[in-house]
Amino acid sequence: MYELGVVYRNIQRADGDVAAKLGALGTATVHEAMGRTGLMKPYMRPIYSGAQASGTAVTVLLQPGDNWMLHVAAEQIQPGDVVVAAVTAESTDGFFGDLLATSFKARGACALIIDAGVRDVRVLAEMAFPVWSKTISAKGTVKATLGSVNIPVVCAGALVTPGDVVVADDDGVVVVPAASAQKVLEKAAAREANEGEKRMKLAAGVLGLDMYNMREPLQQAGLRYID
Amino acid sequence: MYELGVVYRNIQRADGDVAAKLGALGTATVHEAMGRTGLMKPYMRPIYSGAQASGTAVTVLLQPGDNWMLHVAAEQIQPGDVVVAAVTAESTDGFFGDLLATSFKARGACALIIDAGVRDVRVLAEMAFPVWSKTISAKGTVKATLGSVNIPVVCAGALVTPGDVVVADDDGVVVVPAASAQKVLEKAAAREANEGEKRMKLAAGVLGLDMYNMREPLQQAGLRYID
Amino acid sequence: MYELGVVYRNIQRADGDVAAKLGALGTATVHEAMGRTGLMKPYMRPIYSGAQASGTAVTVLLQPGDNWMLHVAAEQIQPGDVVVAAVTAESTDGFFGDLLATSFKARGACALIIDAGVRDVRVLAEMAFPVWSKTISAKGTVKATLGSVNIPVVCAGALVTPGDVVVADDDGVVVVPAASAQKVLEKAAAREANEGEKRMKLAAGVLGLDMYNMREPLQQAGLRYID
Amino acid sequence: MYELGVVYRNIQRADGDVAAKLGALGTATVHEAMGRTGLMKPYMRPIYSGAQASGTAVTVLLQPGDNWMLHVAAEQIQPGDVVVAAVTAESTDGFFGDLLATSFKARGACALIIDAGVRDVRVLAEMAFPVWSKTISAKGTVKATLGSVNIPVVCAGALVTPGDVVVADDDGVVVVPAASAQKVLEKAAAREANEGEKRMKLAAGVLGLDMYNMREPLQQAGLRYID
Amino acid sequence: MYELGVVYRNIQRADGDVAAKLGALGTATVHEAMGRTGLMKPYMRPIYSGAQASGTAVTVLLQPGDNWMLHVAAEQIQPGDVVVAAVTAESTDGFFGDLLATSFKARGACALIIDAGVRDVRVLAEMAFPVWSKTISAKGTVKATLGSVNIPVVCAGALVTPGDVVVADDDGVVVVPAASAQKVLEKAAAREANEGEKRMKLAAGVLGLDMYNMREPLQQAGLRYID
Amino acid sequence: MYELGVVYRNIQRADGDVAAKLGALGTATVHEAMGRTGLMKPYMRPIYSGAQASGTAVTVLLQPGDNWMLHVAAEQIQPGDVVVAAVTAESTDGFFGDLLATSFKARGACALIIDAGVRDVRVLAEMAFPVWSKTISAKGTVKATLGSVNIPVVCAGALVTPGDVVVADDDGVVVVPAASAQKVLEKAAAREANEGEKRMKLAAGVLGLDMYNMREPLQQAGLRYID
Repeated sequence: MYELGVVYRNIQRADGDVAAKLGALGTATVHEAMGRTGLMKPYMRPIYSGAQASGTAVTVLLQPGDNWMLHVAAEQIQPGDVVVAAVTAESTDGFFGDLLATSFKARGACALIIDAGVRDVRVLAEMAFPVWSKTISAKGTVKATLGSVNIPVVCAGALVTPGDVVVADDDGVVVVPAASAQKVLEKAAAREANEGEKRMKLAAGVLGLDMYNMREPLQQAGLRYID
Repeated sequence: MYELGVVYRNIQRADGDVAAKLGALGTATVHEAMGRTGLMKPYMRPIYSGAQASGTAVTVLLQPGDNWMLHVAAEQIQPGDVVVAAVTAESTDGFFGDLLATSFKARGACALIIDAGVRDVRVLAEMAFPVWSKTISAKGTVKATLGSVNIPVVCAGALVTPGDVVVADDDGVVVVPAASAQKVLEKAAAREANEGEKRMKLAAGVLGLDMYNMREPLQQAGLRYID
Repeated sequence: MYELGVVYRNIQRADGDVAAKLGALGTATVHEAMGRTGLMKPYMRPIYSGAQASGTAVTVLLQPGDNWMLHVAAEQIQPGDVVVAAVTAESTDGFFGDLLATSFKARGACALIIDAGVRDVRVLAEMAFPVWSKTISAKGTVKATLGSVNIPVVCAGALVTPGDVVVADDDGVVVVPAASAQKVLEKAAAREANEGEKRMKLAAGVLGLDMYNMREPLQQAGLRYID
Repeated sequence: MYELGVVYRNIQRADGDVAAKLGALGTATVHEAMGRTGLMKPYMRPIYSGAQASGTAVTVLLQPGDNWMLHVAAEQIQPGDVVVAAVTAESTDGFFGDLLATSFKARGACALIIDAGVRDVRVLAEMAFPVWSKTISAKGTVKATLGSVNIPVVCAGALVTPGDVVVADDDGVVVVPAASAQKVLEKAAAREANEGEKRMKLAAGVLGLDMYNMREPLQQAGLRYID
Repeated sequence: MYELGVVYRNIQRADGDVAAKLGALGTATVHEAMGRTGLMKPYMRPIYSGAQASGTAVTVLLQPGDNWMLHVAAEQIQPGDVVVAAVTAESTDGFFGDLLATSFKARGACALIIDAGVRDVRVLAEMAFPVWSKTISAKGTVKATLGSVNIPVVCAGALVTPGDVVVADDDGVVVVPAASAQKVLEKAAAREANEGEKRMKLAAGVLGLDMYNMREPLQQAGLRYID
Repeated sequence: MYELGVVYRNIQRADGDVAAKLGALGTATVHEAMGRTGLMKPYMRPIYSGAQASGTAVTVLLQPGDNWMLHVAAEQIQPGDVVVAAVTAESTDGFFGDLLATSFKARGACALIIDAGVRDVRVLAEMAFPVWSKTISAKGTVKATLGSVNIPVVCAGALVTPGDVVVADDDGVVVVPAASAQKVLEKAAAREANEGEKRMKLAAGVLGLDMYNMREPLQQAGLRYID
């Protein structure tokens, strides 16, 4: 049950430096560090290949076919924010295009995550303003019904509280609660540090079976080799 | 970011009487009373026509293809509860069948809402144990990885906090936060009371155009009639 | 390109008697008589099993998440009409429920075909007011933006001109242009007459291979039997 | 790589009695007895609720939008067979209706499983001829291009060899290789025998946690209870 | 109801210069100029990023899995045409590849819009022959059943009359009726002219809230700011 | 019915040179040479544009959300192999990332085909290790339940026997049985040789109508030209 028609102006943003470091680690590593939770549905795709972003969430709740609240949200953006837009019902319209992107960018936003459609994608790519969306569609929207800004929203299956860290890349979008961001960063960094050595071993032909000591549990589970 | 491997034994359930009354009003009316929010995605369908349920939420977080935590959840059920099961990733397996339904029913549960698959649907219908699910599938599941019980979960796009009221019928599933349940009930009841008179007028041939005074705003919006 | 904000009050309806006879023949037979064209996409399903309807089309163009024009359409309904509602973009909201159904029924409509969602489906079934829709959803809609009534619309992939005959049953929804209705009826009736004899032969064990003289063309196409 | 344009007249059918007994046990139990394999995709749904069938597979490979080979298949049907139809590409057309059903029934077939569409579903329900399909559609098909009959086919994700046992009910469709049918029956029957006692215990309020001795493995996996 | 088995040789094409200018403005702007109508479903995607095309429509109606009429259509192509292909039922086959593209290009076509599948997409990209399609698939098709050329068709939810202007880019495909093309061009150009100034203001940090005077209507709608 | 918990160490691989030559011809040509069969569903897409691979199949059967058997499979890879992974139920998790890719590559695999999700796609592209998958997802998997390696599997609708040739490119994935590989290569090569001349003629403006002698069969089928 969403609170409608409200804009929260003061939100607790996670530390921007932590957000940047989480972004550098990437969604797969961050998501593992979170116990394999916090990921949006895989239908959320970047509008151009190689897009990468991380920042603190400004959230928006939209009505289907209505992008009024994105204009309201623009005013609440601070440098380093990622705007996260949910819709009260499924919608594939193009809620966001190059004009809003120009405004968001001028305010300091580094990306948009929207559980709906987006348009002007070629211009957005030229502007290097990344968007992760469900759909690409030229369909425009009206400005008639209120939603909200900076309330907790469910976007593509993930709960996003204003100020949370959002990390997005070619593998998807992951949400890190502000209160856990530092701890998740530590775990993710440890995991990453660990991976370099593993990668070298595997590249040298060592098998995961041996490196991870899987042969015994596999045998206990009953695996049989047949020649 | 879900907390994994935990079972909260003490949850604040909404008032059972309020839950029952909300159930009698139905999802469409309750959802309107909540400002048109709180609804799960429309892919959630009852396994038999005419199914109806309302109660207080016991929540479960499952891993894909793994129904272990449903057994853990069974112990936390109290009479009047509705079990709400989310999965950490998309899964269409049949996590729930007639044996678990027998157990849930014996513990007093009145329904299951699961963002995944269910099986033994004919037996469940005979038992009059309603389930709302994404899929029907005979595919069984393993019992290998922990999830959690009674943490807040996102199920089919809706945030469900343990103890919330869940109302489900042929139109879908709506979630009412425990703290708002009484207020939503009052609004929904008022709306319902209002509908009887409207229904009579409309049945007598009065047009919504007149009953809702729409002619003037339509004209102002520019509607033109052409003979 | 739809004409927006207009209501055509005078439309040329196909003959009601022809519409009724086409309805009695059913969608599969009518669709065959039309050269296997005129069918809506198969995602259009009746809200209850056994639903059947035929009549003349009153068309509505809706905006996503906005059912205002259904109220405007109600006034244009004449006895024997089927309301056909298209949306300018994909939408799964519940645009139509028991109050509008009461109004439509009072005006003489015999069904609704909507390329979107519907709610109150149990009450609609009790009222015996059939609806074919893409989705069932309790989600309500706003009344803010104009569409049109009685313009040609594309509904679920089929072009529907006001006054066309619409035939709907468990197999789907087919649209017969008003100008062709009589001719299609004749072809469909001839086809139906033909089917009784075929059915008896097939029931007696005669093979379609022989009844339709398929053995020779199959052989010419190169079919080989292997013992 | 399918062999095209061939009809195998002599196939090794599994024992009809075994097929009947597997059918009585139902898809969920049979699928468990097969190590949770052999199930078709869950999009395969019966055209009416409560449909149940089991028998030996006559397989058909169809071309998209072309039902010619269903007529060829009719001649190969023996009493107790279930026809299983795959298509070389995705197709939602209505390949099968009441005339073919009359013929199939006259030949002794007890069901059709088709990875495509079907029509005349109301008549099929009245005839009590069950069909499991991907879609319901009035769209008819041509008779122009060869496929094959009684070759191994992949239908809805499952490999079906002619003569295999097919079991279908409200939970889906499962395929049992002819050579394993007897062994699967024994396992499934043992499982079923086992379930009665479990059901009684669960109905009496015993928890699966205790009945299946899950408490210790859950604790070892790290499950924590929080009051 | 489509007219089958016909080829219209003489169609009224929209002005080619107008088509080119509409193409330069892009789908989002053109679609806005048309009152947000005329857009195909967003599942229509270009086979390579950055594809752009506009021209006059030669329409084709295909049967599922059958590309015969594309060969018939080739003869009707004139320089500057865009071929728009609809199918009588859903089909994902690859109806079109590099040979047909070579032929279409030789005849002067500048693009294909097809509500089905296409193949040889790498070669098509190298040839710079853009295609917007529902699917990419290597699956070939037969040549057995007639459709039509240059009749009005419904393609991906949009009505296309032969000679209409079709504009396609990364945001989708929009159809402009020939009779409205000049007027739509004027509106679209005016809109575009308008956008440059807006873009500069927004880039300078002016908010849409102020530029579009939204603060008052938002307040009237009840928007509340909470600190 | 899959055999679970087994690894076949000795499989009959198709000739590697034949596999390479089939790869050079591409999926569309190979699929035509196979009588238009053997193709996986078109939802299987390469993770980067321009990806191309061919080789001999090492097959893996996975459990949903569990990538244990991919580690087991790594040991069975020989230079020139393509790993083909099926799952016992639908799953969109990211079963495979850069570490496993490093291992697979070190063992000599040239690609992965997986009917599920994959992650680290940017790194995989940098490594030039191509993957064809149903989904891209950062979601990680557990290692808890056995599947099998080198048994026949159904992957994305196609039967794959260990040792079969797999050809994959931008148009999809096609499977050539080892026993037919040489014959299919000959047919495909003949077809390809044939295409150069056709392409030249079509480029010169010759119509397919004339080159393929379609005018007479079209006329016989009843095609009418209207001026």
